[in-house]
Amino acid sequence: MIINMREGASEQEIQHVIERVKEAGFQAHVTRGTERAIVAAVGSNGRRHELRALAAAPGVTEVVPIAQPFKLVSRQVKPTGTVVDVAGVRIGDGGFVIIAGPCSVESREQLFSTAKSVKTAGAHLLRGGAYKPRTSPYEFQGLGLEALELLSDVRKATGLPIVTEVMSTEDVDQICEHADMLQVGARNMQNFALLRRLSKANKPILLKRGPSASVKEWLLAAEYLLAGGNPDVVLCERGIKTFETGTRNTLDLASIALARELSHLPVIADPSHGTGKPSLIPPMSRAAAALGADGIMVEVHPCPERALSDGPQSLDLDGFSRLMQSLAEPLRSVPVQRNSAVA
Amino acid sequence: MIINMREGASEQEIQHVIERVKEAGFQAHVTRGTERAIVAAVGSNGRRHELRALAAAPGVTEVVPIAQPFKLVSRQVKPTGTVVDVAGVRIGDGGFVIIAGPCSVESREQLFSTAKSVKTAGAHLLRGGAYKPRTSPYEFQGLGLEALELLSDVRKATGLPIVTEVMSTEDVDQICEHADMLQVGARNMQNFALLRRLSKANKPILLKRGPSASVKEWLLAAEYLLAGGNPDVVLCERGIKTFETGTRNTLDLASIALARELSHLPVIADPSHGTGKPSLIPPMSRAAAALGADGIMVEVHPCPERALSDGPQSLDLDGFSRLMQSLAEPLRSVPVQRNSAVA
Amino acid sequence: MIINMREGASEQEIQHVIERVKEAGFQAHVTRGTERAIVAAVGSNGRRHELRALAAAPGVTEVVPIAQPFKLVSRQVKPTGTVVDVAGVRIGDGGFVIIAGPCSVESREQLFSTAKSVKTAGAHLLRGGAYKPRTSPYEFQGLGLEALELLSDVRKATGLPIVTEVMSTEDVDQICEHADMLQVGARNMQNFALLRRLSKANKPILLKRGPSASVKEWLLAAEYLLAGGNPDVVLCERGIKTFETGTRNTLDLASIALARELSHLPVIADPSHGTGKPSLIPPMSRAAAALGADGIMVEVHPCPERALSDGPQSLDLDGFSRLMQSLAEPLRSVPVQRNSAVA
Amino acid sequence: MIINMREGASEQEIQHVIERVKEAGFQAHVTRGTERAIVAAVGSNGRRHELRALAAAPGVTEVVPIAQPFKLVSRQVKPTGTVVDVAGVRIGDGGFVIIAGPCSVESREQLFSTAKSVKTAGAHLLRGGAYKPRTSPYEFQGLGLEALELLSDVRKATGLPIVTEVMSTEDVDQICEHADMLQVGARNMQNFALLRRLSKANKPILLKRGPSASVKEWLLAAEYLLAGGNPDVVLCERGIKTFETGTRNTLDLASIALARELSHLPVIADPSHGTGKPSLIPPMSRAAAALGADGIMVEVHPCPERALSDGPQSLDLDGFSRLMQSLAEPLRSVPVQRNSAVA
Repeated sequence: MIINMREGASEQEIQHVIERVKEAGFQAHVTRGTERAIVAAVGSNGRRHELRALAAAPGVTEVVPIAQPFKLVSRQVKPTGTVVDVAGVRIGDGGFVIIAGPCSVESREQLFSTAKSVKTAGAHLLRGGAYKPRTSPYEFQGLGLEALELLSDVRKATGLPIVTEVMSTEDVDQICEHADMLQVGARNMQNFALLRRLSKANKPILLKRGPSASVKEWLLAAEYLLAGGNPDVVLCERGIKTFETGTRNTLDLASIALARELSHLPVIADPSHGTGKPSLIPPMSRAAAALGADGIMVEVHPCPERALSDGPQSLDLDGFSRLMQSLAEPLRSVPVQRNSAVA
Repeated sequence: MIINMREGASEQEIQHVIERVKEAGFQAHVTRGTERAIVAAVGSNGRRHELRALAAAPGVTEVVPIAQPFKLVSRQVKPTGTVVDVAGVRIGDGGFVIIAGPCSVESREQLFSTAKSVKTAGAHLLRGGAYKPRTSPYEFQGLGLEALELLSDVRKATGLPIVTEVMSTEDVDQICEHADMLQVGARNMQNFALLRRLSKANKPILLKRGPSASVKEWLLAAEYLLAGGNPDVVLCERGIKTFETGTRNTLDLASIALARELSHLPVIADPSHGTGKPSLIPPMSRAAAALGADGIMVEVHPCPERALSDGPQSLDLDGFSRLMQSLAEPLRSVPVQRNSAVA
Repeated sequence: MIINMREGASEQEIQHVIERVKEAGFQAHVTRGTERAIVAAVGSNGRRHELRALAAAPGVTEVVPIAQPFKLVSRQVKPTGTVVDVAGVRIGDGGFVIIAGPCSVESREQLFSTAKSVKTAGAHLLRGGAYKPRTSPYEFQGLGLEALELLSDVRKATGLPIVTEVMSTEDVDQICEHADMLQVGARNMQNFALLRRLSKANKPILLKRGPSASVKEWLLAAEYLLAGGNPDVVLCERGIKTFETGTRNTLDLASIALARELSHLPVIADPSHGTGKPSLIPPMSRAAAALGADGIMVEVHPCPERALSDGPQSLDLDGFSRLMQSLAEPLRSVPVQRNSAVA
Repeated sequence: MIINMREGASEQEIQHVIERVKEAGFQAHVTRGTERAIVAAVGSNGRRHELRALAAAPGVTEVVPIAQPFKLVSRQVKPTGTVVDVAGVRIGDGGFVIIAGPCSVESREQLFSTAKSVKTAGAHLLRGGAYKPRTSPYEFQGLGLEALELLSDVRKATGLPIVTEVMSTEDVDQICEHADMLQVGARNMQNFALLRRLSKANKPILLKRGPSASVKEWLLAAEYLLAGGNPDVVLCERGIKTFETGTRNTLDLASIALARELSHLPVIADPSHGTGKPSLIPPMSRAAAALGADGIMVEVHPCPERALSDGPQSLDLDGFSRLMQSLAEPLRSVPVQRNSAVA
């Protein structure tokens, strides 16, 4: 880290910082400029939080970290991409994996018709919520255990592995019995008690990015999972909160490219929450495939206008088929120049 | 709710919406404009989520709610402000309540010296973290039970009631034994499993606003607590995430005035997290007092540059005394016009 | 528009609103719910601003528009996409148009080497700044007229049409002599004096989205150009301001899909400003092509580390060639299910 | 500036950076850590943009500035606060100055009745728009010259100095004849052509913060004015764009305290645009006075529901009187502890 001294900091203040840097287990290198000094803390075995706290020392303006704060999730540590195996479906293997299904499990009929349909259209995994995080306590909160049992049944019937959300440490064991992959929702991305519990679970985790989490914070949340012992983590960008109200969230596709650059973990997109508009799901899914994302997660409902949650952003069964077809179409091509006469 | 039909929606589409509105338990009133129709759903006993899902029906452009979605927290329901009693300290009673103390409990000595000092300066409640939500798994995570026992001890010694954060449903019982008020941190504002558990707890709750939560979402999180049976809720604005990097967060003071207008619950400010800069804490605390907030929560540490967490934004003991003095100074006054000759 | 009355609004307040709606040239349709009333203003020839101001009338909570505020740019008005011809290069014609070149024109050598290189690699238009909007007055402000003359020369030499930014009404005539397309920068998107002047210019306009402009505000800025008489407008998304600091801006690709849905105007992406990182330019360019954007605008410099502006986000000449190659690669393909045994 | 090398950067890459730092006119100090090196550029007479561009050099991860980029506006350069005199009204002199008036000048009667009323209530300056920046070309654009003449008349009648917005370099001379202070609107904060022109004007400037401008960018916009020769600049915070939709903008009061810490220029708040809600104007005005702002700017209209612009956020004449009274009320007081028995 680099400790910036303010203009006119006294020699005593600089010496104090140097001593504290050494006390924290680092070497201190001072550079004195014409107007101000900087102190660089060198070494890899010191106590970094003691350096950070030096921002409060007299004469210091700020402490600037120069290394990334995550370790196990870093591509520097593990240059080759991780492949996460979800009951036979490999995410991160170079293909574009499709996770589809209803926002909430509402009934046997709704779940089975959706599952069969998305399977026929080519989906690889089935999503479906049993426990639902809802902004209002008066909204549908999910069928709970009944939904989990329906998910087990539909897996038997279709062979599609199951992804479902876990909201509480207390539900982890039960959900692990019925699901193949556990999703951490956006609002729980920094629920550290839950992350610590899931780091000991025996299932792969789908970690959604929080609506106001930076890419760095997202990777540090994944670091909790790897540091606790669970290496099977897939990241999922689902849109961030911005001033734009024309879409439900702002799907930050560059964060996928950036996360793949910084980390070896697979990264997918959720264009359903990311846009909130069915018409935008196909173009944004194609964009995700084009930039190198490892897949998408999409909400599908047999009758969106009767859905108990997230109907307005769900594709119907035909819409999902058309989405799958659109993923096979080529990019817009670059025309050959027509005005090349002069050169 | 109002269902807006698109320009050129067919009569069949309009009739379909009307039927679905009735099916959901409402009356349907249609207004046909020159270019488009709107359908108003009238009544108070219908199933609102069925109306919301109609955004997915053919011919519909959007569904616009016209009533606020919260009930028990609303000032319409209870016009007089709620007073929350925390072991004898009354929040919401017209005075400006001061909660102060270290970010984390680090040692007996650190805690006792801080507590005595903030008490002498005039603080009413003591804050101190036992379980700490940290962005990185490699940062100090709090002393846990040891910290709780120190908090019990310091309460006996000083008489200051204790506020401490709860991160997990599993810790609720234990924390209730040692603390007088339980804090839900910003990153757990929509941890609905935790909110449901705390709605059954026998202690007042300090509910921080999430860094990307709208005022509406914040009030709905409080609604979980009241709906579950706990009426003793104090709201705390602690800054939202924006593009501005000159401060740690953007302290949204207008949200305090707005929350007090919409709800009867007391609302306080946290200028420590809200700004991240000690020099900005006194002016923002004064601003909070001026606009009608019910108090502030401030981080204080005997030696910020040695703090295990949040040192750079902590006041030292002298700084806290000066803050308390600054709260007694009057507003800038409006000068009498000097150029009034002409009129 | 719909005027929502508050709960308990008096009959007198409702009648007052009805009268004001009629006075503004609309019919008033009232729907009385169990708790509140709404008044719908029907008609297309009234004065809309008088309705908006009713938000200030007693008993009114809000005024909700139900029609989009733009007209000439709307796809409802003109369902087929507009093609903008820039000196023979057609934008919006189904192909993916490449605009490339240096941030600033710095010298004849720099400009010519870049132009020849991007032309060889397949670019269709040359960008280059003569007048530069710079955050600080102490930064390089562009070569002005000298740059414009160099741009004229390089067009003659290469045949590439020229795109350059206009910052001031006073420069419009001069720039029109040398450039084929005039760019309105992000920070001038709502410089209405400039937009009005450009609506009378005889050249196509490239209108960048402001860093905090909603899609609606962006389209209304374009409406100024069309309403003033210039139909040749290309929109350019260049990233919005958010809390994320891992990228320079947040490139909002969904806004491109949304703008193309709402408007008939062509829309391109600027991944250079949108990400600020050369490594993210190829994936985001591919994403733009995949979702249906009409092209990209990219900064290229023969030696980015010596650029007078925006070096850190510029591609070098080889980097631009590789970008062009990457645009020819197919999307990630969706693997055929391997676990389909059971169904 | 500090140039951070990536882990594993070669000796050759480090030497290349050192040479380029020297070439740019600085001394280079290298610190070699266990994992990476940093190069500090020392000196005050070098060419900083050449250092910034080094972010594009091989082996470099980032270039971190350690000095603030503004000079003339900095409080380091001029520790005592600037007082701006607007026709006899002194802003920055320790008092709280009130600028009030209609959003737009609409008629002689509207202007005169407002002016007399706000003067009686205690306002020091009169605002009123002649040229209006409007999101849509179909909205009222201001009365232009006719409005300016009315403003001159009302000044004669009331003695209140006039503040009005300038949108275009072409209007500067004309507006200077009629107004005492020229306002640069939020959307023109980075209209550098306008700033350069106003730096030569003979009137004080009110510089609004852009809706997505950081405090640093805002101060650099002011730097354009001072660097060009106009020292009489007052800053005005008017709300930034965030995800919150409960208020029109998010009034960032901490930015006022921060701007006053970094700069010697006076800073005022605009709670009308900052909140968009009349009920929030008094509490936020009081908050501004409490934190040390030098004044406020408030929109007042005799009949907000008939205003041609910004009616919904305007105070009526009575509302403005009540605001002025509320500014005389004291802060909420801190109660004496009642539970102090134990200690």
